[in-house]
Amino acid sequence: MDIKLYLTKKKDTVDKALERLVPPAQKFPASVHEAMHYSLFGGGKRVRPILSIAAAEAIGAKTADLLPIAGSLELIHTYSLIHDDLPAMDDDDFRRGRATCHKMYGEAIAILAGDGLLNMAFEVLSDPRRLKAIPAARLIAIIKEISSASGVFGMIGGQVVDMESEGKDVDFPTLEYIHTHKTGALIRAAVRVGALYAKAGQRQFMALTHYGERVGLAFQIVDDILDITGTQEEIGKDVGSDIKKGKKTFPSFYGLEESRARALEVADKAVQALKDFDRKADPLRELAKYIVNRVN
Amino acid sequence: MDIKLYLTKKKDTVDKALERLVPPAQKFPASVHEAMHYSLFGGGKRVRPILSIAAAEAIGAKTADLLPIAGSLELIHTYSLIHDDLPAMDDDDFRRGRATCHKMYGEAIAILAGDGLLNMAFEVLSDPRRLKAIPAARLIAIIKEISSASGVFGMIGGQVVDMESEGKDVDFPTLEYIHTHKTGALIRAAVRVGALYAKAGQRQFMALTHYGERVGLAFQIVDDILDITGTQEEIGKDVGSDIKKGKKTFPSFYGLEESRARALEVADKAVQALKDFDRKADPLRELAKYIVNRVN
Repeated sequence: MDIKLYLTKKKDTVDKALERLVPPAQKFPASVHEAMHYSLFGGGKRVRPILSIAAAEAIGAKTADLLPIAGSLELIHTYSLIHDDLPAMDDDDFRRGRATCHKMYGEAIAILAGDGLLNMAFEVLSDPRRLKAIPAARLIAIIKEISSASGVFGMIGGQVVDMESEGKDVDFPTLEYIHTHKTGALIRAAVRVGALYAKAGQRQFMALTHYGERVGLAFQIVDDILDITGTQEEIGKDVGSDIKKGKKTFPSFYGLEESRARALEVADKAVQALKDFDRKADPLRELAKYIVNRVN
Repeated sequence: MDIKLYLTKKKDTVDKALERLVPPAQKFPASVHEAMHYSLFGGGKRVRPILSIAAAEAIGAKTADLLPIAGSLELIHTYSLIHDDLPAMDDDDFRRGRATCHKMYGEAIAILAGDGLLNMAFEVLSDPRRLKAIPAARLIAIIKEISSASGVFGMIGGQVVDMESEGKDVDFPTLEYIHTHKTGALIRAAVRVGALYAKAGQRQFMALTHYGERVGLAFQIVDDILDITGTQEEIGKDVGSDIKKGKKTFPSFYGLEESRARALEVADKAVQALKDFDRKADPLRELAKYIVNRVN
């Protein structure tokens, strides 16, 4: 299969779904809606929604009704980028090749746009007009999965430890905590909500969970590598920002070569987790390979 | 009935429920958990949870299973206070008689503690262990009600307009927008989720909605008055901050006397909205009166 074509098509589907999910940028009060649009439609790869869709497809489900759920993952991901970039946090000026949200709209609106996107994820996930095909009990399980992944025992906890570790000589378990929580938790949840939506059996659910954990780890190792080897054009943000901030990364523990080898090995294990799935899981398999070979 | 005794008892019940809802302050990473605890257990009156409980009682429902839902309203209210107090927003140093969250824990942790509390509301609302007595479809309706009230078309929108109106000669409709959204939306939702939980009939639901809107307005008018007439000991935050920030308030349009009269009138209308309810709605009636007569 042609993974690039698959990604282009799915990104288009997700973008269209997101346009339906979020209110127009002209809505009142315009500043916060514009800021939400600016960050949401600022060139994201839509990795989390696509992983969610591919997981549901792997089980053989039609995915039209999954789109609001997949989109909500991108709302949460975008909120986390806006807040992480704030001066009080990572203080980043560039994201996806453009000025960060607070550089464009000021800190106050950026904080509120982030709040608005996080909140909107749950507005979408509880909107019966958008999700009438999904039984309420299953929807509650999906909301639980997503909110746990984005909360203080997931993504937020990862960001806290990441920030508090800057300039410190942290050990490898701490780095692992940051990776599995800051990025890993929402990627794992993306795969799992696709599985929940598609009524995965217990063994399928466990296999997809393992896949999601490994893909999340591979994604983060490659992120760490690209922060060193990428160009600003490729990665769309400041290069070398981890080193400048005194952040420990995979390469700072293992070097670039070993980190590359580890990313390939973890992606390979992600593919192995899908051994009992048929060809409908090929997009997931190719996605794992794509994630380690990406340049942005 | 003795409304003060009622409020003391219910506050105690809500506080105990909140202690069960949020993880211990010692959980990892401790900074964010401590900050969440600091703000959540910093002397809030628990007006929103108590309104929710009183609304359910007015219909005759037992409220033990409502407590996680009522508590989630306080999680959201507390998150909104933490973010509103940030230097980039209202830049307040005192809240409920103590240093604000960012003064205690720094801006980054305050932003993340706010995010954590908002997110935790939805973790609680989707936790089947806590809410097994409530049918999933009704729980989805409750999540929808709360998330709409706290989102960009509710509380967040109100904060945006409030902030952008500082120092400007705004008109009365703009002030009304700020009031109905920044404070009013979540108070209205509190009453409505109590009604939804208690399986209110359509007429009951409409009456309670009207009650909630009026109580929310009365609450805000009194807040504006107390910002002028209260002492720092009473209101626990800087006195006169609205005037210092160039914020238009009810008294700046109508003067103190007229504002007091209007608050009493609106509270009276809230009570009138309950005319078809029996004595089980007495706590709601007394709450409306308490809200206009409060000194903090």
